[in-house]
Amino acid sequence: DYSLKVMDHFSNPRNMGSIEDSDGVGEVGNAKCGDIMKIYLKVENDRISDVKFQTFGCGAAIASSSMATEMIKGKTLEEAWKLSNKAVAEALDGLPPIKMHCSMLAEEAIHEAINDYLKKK
Amino acid sequence: DYSLKVMDHFSNPRNMGSIEDSDGVGEVGNAKCGDIMKIYLKVENDRISDVKFQTFGCGAAIASSSMATEMIKGKTLEEAWKLSNKAVAEALDGLPPIKMHCSMLAEEAIHEAINDYLKKK
Ligand code: FES
Repeated sequence: DYSLKVMDHFSNPRNMGSIEDSDGVGEVGNAKCGDIMKIYLKVENDRISDVKFQTFGCGAAIASSSMATEMIKGKTLEEAWKLSNKAVAEALDGLPPIKMHCSMLAEEAIHEAINDYLKKK
Repeated sequence: DYSLKVMDHFSNPRNMGSIEDSDGVGEVGNAKCGDIMKIYLKVENDRISDVKFQTFGCGAAIASSSMATEMIKGKTLEEAWKLSNKAVAEALDGLPPIKMHCSMLAEEAIHEAINDYLKKK
């Protein structure tokens, strides 16, 4: 069963949506389930001033992206890069093992978005 | 990529939620991805007068449950039993092969809910 924090971030996701004038966008697919995740970043002075996500993924993907985006908001790009899906799962009080791959989507899409920002800069 | 109908039923799902005084409830899990689906039925004169679903599943599971519940509303229990996930996928103008198993959740949960109703009756 899912933790209360997972259910909270699933039913009431934070930072869902897109950013029109974003500074970096990352999109990744999950080979295991075919789901996709898109992350939009707004960057100011090397810090993430805003972040949004869109996904076609499951409840675990939604909850972990909601938590991951909360955790990197206001952080430097370097700090955001270091956020692992395990840290996100811990902050959610755990995810079932079969759902850990869903939380990888957010981690990978954040990396892609940071790379996209650095490339454009 | 997903069809317009899939995107429509995903972004704007029909019949999402629960029915307090339901006549039958079906809950199934997906061994492949760990997701769950719950279907609530209201039955009048052997016809499905109302139906709602809840899921932790992905966009494909949401879209196919939205479409499946639309397709069985007003139908007899026998007609509803015969609804296959293939017919639902066709009504959605197709689903990627890797996502066909997600559409099984709705079909199986409808069967469970009808069985639950018949058992209680
Ligand atoms: S099953 Fe695909 S993101 Fe969770």
